[in-house]
Amino acid sequence: MSKLSQIYQTPLALLTDLYQLTMAQGYWKSGRSEQEAVFHLFFRKNPFQGGFTIAAGLEYVLDYLKQFRFTDCDVDYLASLEGNDGASLFSAEFLSYLTRLELRCDLDAVPEGTVVFPHEPLVRVRGPILQCQLLETALLNLVNYQSLIATKSARICAAAGSDPVLEFGLRRAQGIDGGLAASRAAYLGGCAATSNVLAGKLFQIPVKGTHAHSWVMSFDDELAAFEEYADAMPNNCVFLVDTYDTLDGVRNAIQVGLQLRKSGHEMVGIRLDSGDLAYLSIEARQLLDEAGLTNVAIVASNDLDEGIITSLKTQGATIAVWGVGTKLVTAYDQPALGGVYKLGAIQNETGHWERKLKLSEQAIKTSTPGILQVRRFFNSEGAMADMIYDELNPQPVSDIVVDPLDPTRRRLLSRDLEAKDLLIPVVRAGQIVKECETLTQIRQRVQQQLSQFHTSVRRHTTPHEYPVGLEQELHEFKTAEILRARHPHPM
Amino acid sequence: MSKLSQIYQTPLALLTDLYQLTMAQGYWKSGRSEQEAVFHLFFRKNPFQGGFTIAAGLEYVLDYLKQFRFTDCDVDYLASLEGNDGASLFSAEFLSYLTRLELRCDLDAVPEGTVVFPHEPLVRVRGPILQCQLLETALLNLVNYQSLIATKSARICAAAGSDPVLEFGLRRAQGIDGGLAASRAAYLGGCAATSNVLAGKLFQIPVKGTHAHSWVMSFDDELAAFEEYADAMPNNCVFLVDTYDTLDGVRNAIQVGLQLRKSGHEMVGIRLDSGDLAYLSIEARQLLDEAGLTNVAIVASNDLDEGIITSLKTQGATIAVWGVGTKLVTAYDQPALGGVYKLGAIQNETGHWERKLKLSEQAIKTSTPGILQVRRFFNSEGAMADMIYDELNPQPVSDIVVDPLDPTRRRLLSRDLEAKDLLIPVVRAGQIVKECETLTQIRQRVQQQLSQFHTSVRRHTTPHEYPVGLEQELHEFKTAEILRARHPHPM
Repeated sequence: MSKLSQIYQTPLALLTDLYQLTMAQGYWKSGRSEQEAVFHLFFRKNPFQGGFTIAAGLEYVLDYLKQFRFTDCDVDYLASLEGNDGASLFSAEFLSYLTRLELRCDLDAVPEGTVVFPHEPLVRVRGPILQCQLLETALLNLVNYQSLIATKSARICAAAGSDPVLEFGLRRAQGIDGGLAASRAAYLGGCAATSNVLAGKLFQIPVKGTHAHSWVMSFDDELAAFEEYADAMPNNCVFLVDTYDTLDGVRNAIQVGLQLRKSGHEMVGIRLDSGDLAYLSIEARQLLDEAGLTNVAIVASNDLDEGIITSLKTQGATIAVWGVGTKLVTAYDQPALGGVYKLGAIQNETGHWERKLKLSEQAIKTSTPGILQVRRFFNSEGAMADMIYDELNPQPVSDIVVDPLDPTRRRLLSRDLEAKDLLIPVVRAGQIVKECETLTQIRQRVQQQLSQFHTSVRRHTTPHEYPVGLEQELHEFKTAEILRARHPHPM
Repeated sequence: MSKLSQIYQTPLALLTDLYQLTMAQGYWKSGRSEQEAVFHLFFRKNPFQGGFTIAAGLEYVLDYLKQFRFTDCDVDYLASLEGNDGASLFSAEFLSYLTRLELRCDLDAVPEGTVVFPHEPLVRVRGPILQCQLLETALLNLVNYQSLIATKSARICAAAGSDPVLEFGLRRAQGIDGGLAASRAAYLGGCAATSNVLAGKLFQIPVKGTHAHSWVMSFDDELAAFEEYADAMPNNCVFLVDTYDTLDGVRNAIQVGLQLRKSGHEMVGIRLDSGDLAYLSIEARQLLDEAGLTNVAIVASNDLDEGIITSLKTQGATIAVWGVGTKLVTAYDQPALGGVYKLGAIQNETGHWERKLKLSEQAIKTSTPGILQVRRFFNSEGAMADMIYDELNPQPVSDIVVDPLDPTRRRLLSRDLEAKDLLIPVVRAGQIVKECETLTQIRQRVQQQLSQFHTSVRRHTTPHEYPVGLEQELHEFKTAEILRARHPHPM
């Protein structure tokens, strides 16, 4: 059973913008519903002023496709919608067509966990234009958010180095699924565990947690609270020590930790959730070590992100486990990835593909025409550049790539280099052809992929810009099309 | 049927942090699971550097309570979790207790759509401490996010004045439910409609939408695209005019609008989605008016928020309808409301209530003890101040309120003033006692409530701080408790 149908009661074909349905009716009425088209899902800027993005959300997309259908209840609702003259917005014939609709699109996509860059298609959808259009909004919703969180997670985990990062964000997440999908994407991006029990159950993510301030407050004193907790759960003791006074809390935890040891158990850790984490962790470490509790880990939480973790490490904080919530699951400093879904080509009546682009006043917003693929080139040190090329040509025409925002920046990619195409077939004629992967496999791919890039690309501030270019013929075609569309106006 | 069970397949008792369950086992093992406690859900700062917050999410909370239960499948999962010694984290007896658990908490809450302020409880939960604890995470998730978005929506709608605001955010929302709950909260906060069809269906929100750039790109030229759309849907024509050149697009739309008129229909509007919206809207308005299309509305979208809308209005933009997406549904400039859930009081074995507080180095993070209620005082001009008082006293002891962050700021609230308590009973012994409300009623409450506050409080930048204070006896008790807990340490 698909994850989405484990989570969602209702089929999700209506999880879309109304204009997808009005356009669908337009294509249908004008007899063009079956016209073959290609759309690309891509973004224009790495999030967080970073140097890379982790693609995620594909498994949700496949789940979404599996359950895609318009129910009778859905079309009854659509039949109730009215235009500005009070007449129905949708015709009965079109709605009947929708209930019979079966997806037969092809999807190519980069595997989840792939490191990707601006302008590269993460998903390419080919099929009847009406169907491609109906998938736009849900695909964007699912891929945008999970890629954003997987990327944030990878950044935070990189800052933590070899220390485990725990995702604690459910209470501040944007809705229920904002929590579930975030826990999935955070684990995928490198987190070691989540506090979210339902995500643990649905996605087989390790879950972690011990107690809150309220546990301590419900007792007359902190020592009694720790003792009672240790008595109830001797194999899960991480004591939250800052309900009243942090270092007194550490002393109480030590007392209970030593009692635990006598009974054959070991205290796992203490948690700091407020105050100066650098100072307190250093003091707490000393107290713990003096008491012989050298294996007790110091867990810290409290509005952490990659910047604060890096700073605390620089200050010599002795934190061994990082609990990260709000800043991770909401991607606080940039809570949306601006992914878009643009038409790249359309087949005319003679079966010829016409390449399409959308103009914009801003060069960065002009889309790239064609049926696009991404080829990644490697040298002995790892990934060295990506080429976006048009599969309408059987092979890239040229070995030269041109920077999409600065056509004077070019790079020659020798045919001797090892190379790999990133988009792989995942759906053919509506049927899933990609092998199922576990979240653990995807999680490993993230680390394996990241290791292929120079540390300067992975740096979380002012990273080196990894070279991604348009294959030269594609660049020249695109430029010619822009010039043709922008035929000079009389002023 | 509850909305959540219309949306979610699975009961959501596991939608919680693991530590709620480990604490629950702790309470249960120590024989304290039935000990009566009171928790408050509140936040510490208005979001967006604003002057107010709109409470939202209560209907979701009630839905959540209705379906709350641990299934056999849930406890099977919990039984599989292990502690640090490899033994089970949860005992079989405790898990069996969970499957039999029936909620019997009392909830008092402010009605959805109420204007609220920092430190005021939005929800108060009273019941067996184990049960109160199990509700924490889900309540925070549901109330934090919807209150955040309702507040953002109210701010954006205020900036738009009498112009309708359409919510277009689904593609950038944080997950599926980030989209659904956002559409609900945005409508509640004042938006006129959404593009999200499933939200329209589930919550009876008006839906809006016409076509995207891809519609235009799929034709050989823009004029043909507009003509074909008008032919297919003559009663829903808002033409997106910026696929190639915006003012050329307006001219094409005018041509089709005049043809439409001949066939007895009216073009509804044109949409601008890029470029200088002030300049383009003024030019477009002139072209439309010269063509006699004075009723055709100019719709604008493109990363709008309350600041940009205000600026465009100042510049004389002739935009009549505002489409707002990413910045609204992700609450871009502050994507989380920092709501917390703190123990306020606990009943001891003799039935006496002990008031509890959590200390912190930061005064703003110290919680307020008691069983709290909020009383709002009105004069002839509207709401003038709120008093947080302790219901353990039958009436507020004093007429004086003290600023929780600056005890020298005090205010006398005469007993002659009109006053109203904000928290009302919504659940008693696990059963919902609050009457059901429509989203339209809640939406009207927001506007009616906002009108009770001075415009300086509602201003979206540097607002006036509305006075909220602790009733004097409560303030004094809290201060004494802090001093007692912070008994001076030897340095």
